Amino acid sequence: MTEIAYLGPAGTYSEVAALSLGIDDVQPLPCVSIPEVFEAVERGKAVLGVVPIENSIEGSVVATLDALVFDTTLEIQRELVLDIHFSLVAAPGTKLAGITSVVAHPQAGGQCRRWLERNLPGRPVTAANSNAEAVQTAVANPGVAALGPVLAAEIYGAEVIEDGVQDYAGNQTRFVVIGHGLQPRSGKDKTSLALFMKKDKPGALLMILSEFAYADINLTKIQSRPTKRQLGDYMFFVDLEGHVDDPEVRLALDCLRLKLREVKVLGSYPVAR
Amino acid sequence: MTEIAYLGPAGTYSEVAALSLGIDDVQPLPCVSIPEVFEAVERGKAVLGVVPIENSIEGSVVATLDALVFDTTLEIQRELVLDIHFSLVAAPGTKLAGITSVVAHPQAGGQCRRWLERNLPGRPVTAANSNAEAVQTAVANPGVAALGPVLAAEIYGAEVIEDGVQDYAGNQTRFVVIGHGLQPRSGKDKTSLALFMKKDKPGALLMILSEFAYADINLTKIQSRPTKRQLGDYMFFVDLEGHVDDPEVRLALDCLRLKLREVKVLGSYPVAR
Repeated sequence: MTEIAYLGPAGTYSEVAALSLGIDDVQPLPCVSIPEVFEAVERGKAVLGVVPIENSIEGSVVATLDALVFDTTLEIQRELVLDIHFSLVAAPGTKLAGITSVVAHPQAGGQCRRWLERNLPGRPVTAANSNAEAVQTAVANPGVAALGPVLAAEIYGAEVIEDGVQDYAGNQTRFVVIGHGLQPRSGKDKTSLALFMKKDKPGALLMILSEFAYADINLTKIQSRPTKRQLGDYMFFVDLEGHVDDPEVRLALDCLRLKLREVKVLGSYPVAR
Repeated sequence: MTEIAYLGPAGTYSEVAALSLGIDDVQPLPCVSIPEVFEAVERGKAVLGVVPIENSIEGSVVATLDALVFDTTLEIQRELVLDIHFSLVAAPGTKLAGITSVVAHPQAGGQCRRWLERNLPGRPVTAANSNAEAVQTAVANPGVAALGPVLAAEIYGAEVIEDGVQDYAGNQTRFVVIGHGLQPRSGKDKTSLALFMKKDKPGALLMILSEFAYADINLTKIQSRPTKRQLGDYMFFVDLEGHVDDPEVRLALDCLRLKLREVKVLGSYPVAR
């Protein structure tokens, strides 16, 4: 049995991600916050943890980045990209015409607002703390529909009235699987780094990019962020193609370690898909 | 009278930002979504719009970045950084000991979770679609408290039971004021850009940074983002110190326009504080 901690409650997209890893005999362990997912793995209550790190509509998940950078020695073991589809669900037998109100997490409600205006005009949209809570509320209240993933409908005994009710196509969330230690090379890997600048060093990013260019390493993501410890104190998140055990990646990181305040490897792991 | 559109309803931090601009005789115009704030200004229903663009805990507000980059010719006129403080508020006369449940936007609830666990253990936390809706619900229901800004308490006749109940200090949101045309130079300005790469050009970011370094321009933010039009098609958000009418900024942008697919100026505006 493999315990996997995830951002709960049951039926969230984090659970969908945990169940999509292809691991046999998963024991999902729902947690109430992202820091608690990390804690569960650190304390051995779970072998792995699954947390969202980036959504194509909502952007980076800062709580996950911060936990990886500042609060843990756990490393990213895998990444996983899920298409996010919202369904309109309700108690079995409910018809669209019989729906008098909708319950949804505010983000889900925002992402399906136009569909709701067209198909359920005038119905009030009340809020829920999670997609799973929304589905539970709908099942318990006749005439109330919820927005949520199909998994939540299955878990809580709801029926899907209509699938794919989000206003924008292409909504994807990238999840990372966190755990102990570094993954071995797979041949097609990606490495996530946090790079901390020394103070008052203009040109630092130019130097960093030059080191990667010299070593023929492609970057797939770069993002600056204040460290919040001191105003003007910056760091960068970088994703690159390659594994920390690849000779060219090791060379670039060795050069950067001589010059930067800190180079933290957040993980080397196989590229998704 | 100056109509200012903002992300409503009344009493949100976007309204606090709109009222903090120091403009006389503001007529606030609440909108239900970020795209509607842009639309209100484009159609002349409001002179200016106020939208959040970045939060120190939640990260970039992708809806605002996307609207600026893809959907509008409006430009950033000003920026404004607000400290986000949540207060516990309720109907006048309510005491902490008399609170039986709490209502909050899920983000606010998440940011005050530990305080609630310590000070109101066991009380259920129900969800609201906005901080303002939470405060209205609390005022109408005895024994129910809400998390929200002080302005919302004033607007809806609630009383502040305790101030500063957020778990983490240093929570700040950066707002931008959007409107027609380019602001003149103030002497201490910032410029926001969206830079679109040509396909299959490794080394593009290195070239971009070299142009800015040659022109002695400091970057204060850089962030890569897939354009979503085509996989592998990337763009960068850049904030730099200076105004597009500064000769060195103009030189760098002229050089970049010769080489990149597109350089879009999102605005030049005075640096906050």
